Amino acid sequence: MAENTPIAKNKKYRRIATEEAWAPQELLDMYADLFNSKTLDDPGFNSLWGFYGTSMEPRPATVRRKLADLDEERLADMDAAGIDFAVLALTSPGVQVFDRDTAVAVSRDSNDILKAAIDRHPDRYAGLCAIASQAPELAAQELERCKELGFRGIINNSHTHGEYLSDKKFWPIFEAAEALELPIYLHPNTPPKNMIDPMLEVGLDGAIFGFGVETGMHMLRIITAGVFDQFPKLQFIIGHMGEALPYWMYRLDFMHNAQVSSKRYETLQPLKKKVSDYLKENVYITCSGMAWEPAVKFAQQQIGVDRVMYAMDYPYQYVKQEVVDMDAMDISDADKKLFFEGVATKVFKL
Amino acid sequence: MAENTPIAKNKKYRRIATEEAWAPQELLDMYADLFNSKTLDDPGFNSLWGFYGTSMEPRPATVRRKLADLDEERLADMDAAGIDFAVLALTSPGVQVFDRDTAVAVSRDSNDILKAAIDRHPDRYAGLCAIASQAPELAAQELERCKELGFRGIINNSHTHGEYLSDKKFWPIFEAAEALELPIYLHPNTPPKNMIDPMLEVGLDGAIFGFGVETGMHMLRIITAGVFDQFPKLQFIIGHMGEALPYWMYRLDFMHNAQVSSKRYETLQPLKKKVSDYLKENVYITCSGMAWEPAVKFAQQQIGVDRVMYAMDYPYQYVKQEVVDMDAMDISDADKKLFFEGVATKVFKL
Repeated sequence: MAENTPIAKNKKYRRIATEEAWAPQELLDMYADLFNSKTLDDPGFNSLWGFYGTSMEPRPATVRRKLADLDEERLADMDAAGIDFAVLALTSPGVQVFDRDTAVAVSRDSNDILKAAIDRHPDRYAGLCAIASQAPELAAQELERCKELGFRGIINNSHTHGEYLSDKKFWPIFEAAEALELPIYLHPNTPPKNMIDPMLEVGLDGAIFGFGVETGMHMLRIITAGVFDQFPKLQFIIGHMGEALPYWMYRLDFMHNAQVSSKRYETLQPLKKKVSDYLKENVYITCSGMAWEPAVKFAQQQIGVDRVMYAMDYPYQYVKQEVVDMDAMDISDADKKLFFEGVATKVFKL
Repeated sequence: MAENTPIAKNKKYRRIATEEAWAPQELLDMYADLFNSKTLDDPGFNSLWGFYGTSMEPRPATVRRKLADLDEERLADMDAAGIDFAVLALTSPGVQVFDRDTAVAVSRDSNDILKAAIDRHPDRYAGLCAIASQAPELAAQELERCKELGFRGIINNSHTHGEYLSDKKFWPIFEAAEALELPIYLHPNTPPKNMIDPMLEVGLDGAIFGFGVETGMHMLRIITAGVFDQFPKLQFIIGHMGEALPYWMYRLDFMHNAQVSSKRYETLQPLKKKVSDYLKENVYITCSGMAWEPAVKFAQQQIGVDRVMYAMDYPYQYVKQEVVDMDAMDISDADKKLFFEGVATKVFKL
């Protein structure tokens, strides 16, 4: 597709973008303060928000401004890119870098701010509920409140102080999510301190590589821990074309079976289904950061056309040409409508 | 393809398997001793060889026996699977877990043992030269010796005591490899101690996930360090359908450009080409562990049909049905001949 092709206005679908980040200015200030305090032993946070939170280079300065706006600039950007509707989520790492009490308070405040924005623009926005996984029982309560407020899912930015949702202490969150029929968007974070060094020392800890490793691993931990055997109706969403897990499916199935059979690990126990079955039955995938037809088609073919949907990753990847490229994909009109509108409408009950 | 279909005998190509592991019994004994000594601060090695080196479960016991055989059993297995020719490489982690002097000595001894096996079966085997990257200048000398002995490439099992070939101290190896026209097979190892914990604690450190993360990262470190700008004729080979890098190409290009432009890292500097260009011009890919038509086709389409080749990953994945499945791929006869024979013949000068 030639660049600078106009974005189609007379399309046959509503373009819904499903991994769109925001943050109240108060949270951005807290990130900058946390970085400057040098008190958090999380080199990934310091790498990410030391950059996005303080750098005056054009990219991070623009990202900060656009993250905090939920009105004029964001709606104008959506209009210019042909995005009809956005599913908004608190940017990574959300409240998960704070201590328990701060995280609980900021998650509630952030959800209230987002709810007010949705009320101002109900035809343009839906929201994902931010939770403090540091306090699983309170997080489950916040999910009930969010459900009543009209939120359509949950945002979790991967690890919380190096801990993963595969740990059973977090499973009250899954229980509530399944009961409330709220899907969980498992969004990237930088890898934790006991994993990041070989990536960080060469600048590969962020979106270029570390994000995908961290989030793909987290999703795989959740699958192999048996979460979906216990909560079979629970649904996850992962971005970036599935964090490479669709490409790995064959090997995941073969090696999971080999390692379980040989009793190599106590932590790897038999599952009711193949690893790939859970990817096809409990995971939705978005094209955030991966507006690339070959990968979209691969995921559609392997995971299912009813499980792959559009995301822009605004404001981190606000590239209007990508909308044009996705519009122009060589797939059927029906599949394109599913990709831009139908899957998101179903999973988020829009 | 139905299982248990006979392997075609009247095929129109020579089946060359390109990532086939071996180890002298002496090395297997050294691995067991090193594990039992509890002196090596490398949890990945202890996980991998604590299992494969000592477990009496059928899978590891069989792997040990088959690794050490370079005659009757291996040739019979190749015949039964329809493998005409094997490119043999010292199994992971090779000599890279030893101290410098031990590694230098064992690499030379192993190469001599492999050379003798190739001389016994010259119509069935070619070999990759094992080197002690702990001593880059001596490794370069060993490459010259291996070239004279008829070796067709180099085996490197990812990190060496947590260090990566992207570090300039290792570049004498690249200089020799390029001058001698020996391609480097960058084979997996478990991730190093400062990266492995979140994978190891849930049994995901090995072939199921950690191998791919470690090796994909290593290849990406080599690209982003500018190795191919300095050594433009140097060629690498990575297995497991490219360790997911072909699937990530779009994001690698976008984010490398974004991060270089925003000057986020001193360690990420401009390159002469896009990240994906190096994957297409300096990297070959094998299907080891990934005998899966959709991923093979994806890599062929994105990296090039002249850069994707067959590998069995014997004895770790000795699955005869996979040969049948690869035979039956819905690709042209010309492309299938390239996959099984032509690409390997060219890259290894067979």
